[in-house]
Amino acid sequence: MRIIELKETVTASNDRDAEVLRGELKEKGTLLINLMASPGAGKTTLLERTIRDMKDRFRIAVMEADVDSDVDARRIEKLGAKAVQAHTGGMCHMDAGMTRAALHELGEEHFDLVVLENVGNLICPAEFDTGAGKKVMLLSVPEGDDKPLKYPLMFTVSDVLVLTKTDVAPYFDFDFEACKRRARGLNPNIEIFEVSSKTGDGFEAWENWLARAIEDWKK
Amino acid sequence: MRIIELKETVTASNDRDAEVLRGELKEKGTLLINLMASPGAGKTTLLERTIRDMKDRFRIAVMEADVDSDVDARRIEKLGAKAVQAHTGGMCHMDAGMTRAALHELGEEHFDLVVLENVGNLICPAEFDTGAGKKVMLLSVPEGDDKPLKYPLMFTVSDVLVLTKTDVAPYFDFDFEACKRRARGLNPNIEIFEVSSKTGDGFEAWENWLARAIEDWKK
Repeated sequence: MRIIELKETVTASNDRDAEVLRGELKEKGTLLINLMASPGAGKTTLLERTIRDMKDRFRIAVMEADVDSDVDARRIEKLGAKAVQAHTGGMCHMDAGMTRAALHELGEEHFDLVVLENVGNLICPAEFDTGAGKKVMLLSVPEGDDKPLKYPLMFTVSDVLVLTKTDVAPYFDFDFEACKRRARGLNPNIEIFEVSSKTGDGFEAWENWLARAIEDWKK
Repeated sequence: MRIIELKETVTASNDRDAEVLRGELKEKGTLLINLMASPGAGKTTLLERTIRDMKDRFRIAVMEADVDSDVDARRIEKLGAKAVQAHTGGMCHMDAGMTRAALHELGEEHFDLVVLENVGNLICPAEFDTGAGKKVMLLSVPEGDDKPLKYPLMFTVSDVLVLTKTDVAPYFDFDFEACKRRARGLNPNIEIFEVSSKTGDGFEAWENWLARAIEDWKK
């Protein structure tokens, strides 16, 4: 596993860099997903189960972005998937230049799907286009159904909202309908899934969406 | 309840501004606590219970910092405590100038304790001295015991770590000893409490620490 130390790109033209990167990935037929959430929302655990279920159909790689440590990349590698760990040098998000540098570390091999597991943070990552084809955010049941009110940009820019840790819903006051209504109030087109990475509940719908997105990206 | 719209202070001398503010608050005998955590770690719920238990002994006010919404300040006001809601204009943290502006909104009344509930984020708030006398961070059981590895600065700069939502520990794989060992590895002096805001477990120790900190600040 590679660990790379990244620095924020000095260019002011992140949006343009992101567009160029997205075009290159489209050309290659590689769907890049920018996966965003709070710390501890279950990003790596969702990826573990998703990779286990889909690795025979698609070539998948993961880029783990963190301020420090390599625990997440090690977890992904145990599944036999290619993983790189990117350290953001204290930065609270990834930008397009940093994403390009991390992709470079994956080498020349072709992947159908590359997931960028962004830094755990509901604010900063929403502001930076990484060049991803799709943006997926997680919100875990223990975090509470009021999060769309407090972190509106993240819900506004995401294509998909995955509500995670549904198995512990009996122990928390989480109003699924209120949460979805708030998310759709910000973003009427957002696709919403409810999953438990522990029990597997809801994974079929999420993985069907993901498989379709990978196929559509190649068209 | 007041809602104020803040902008990041343009001064490069945040550390000096923070020192000046801390000196003024020491002079007044007002302990300012910078309360930091991920989104949904239970900051407001901890404050609700703490205020209910301590409001007859101490004059307490809360400054809620959020990118958007005023749900947290409304919850605090229901307890009869003074609250202001600060909107950070998309910013992922509070700095000393923003904190001074929010304090100004609390008016001339004397408070023994003012809690700044910072933006939900384990990265950016750790980097900015707000002028607080004490820094308290929360980590909730559902977030996982590996967080000190991934967000080391927050654990390094905090005086106190409160592990929250201990009532749901049976439903999560959270290793309390491993988490504490990791936190103390970064910060040997960090005080650690374990609480459940739902059941009240562990509140006596946390509130004893807080009462002592308020008294010590007046010396």
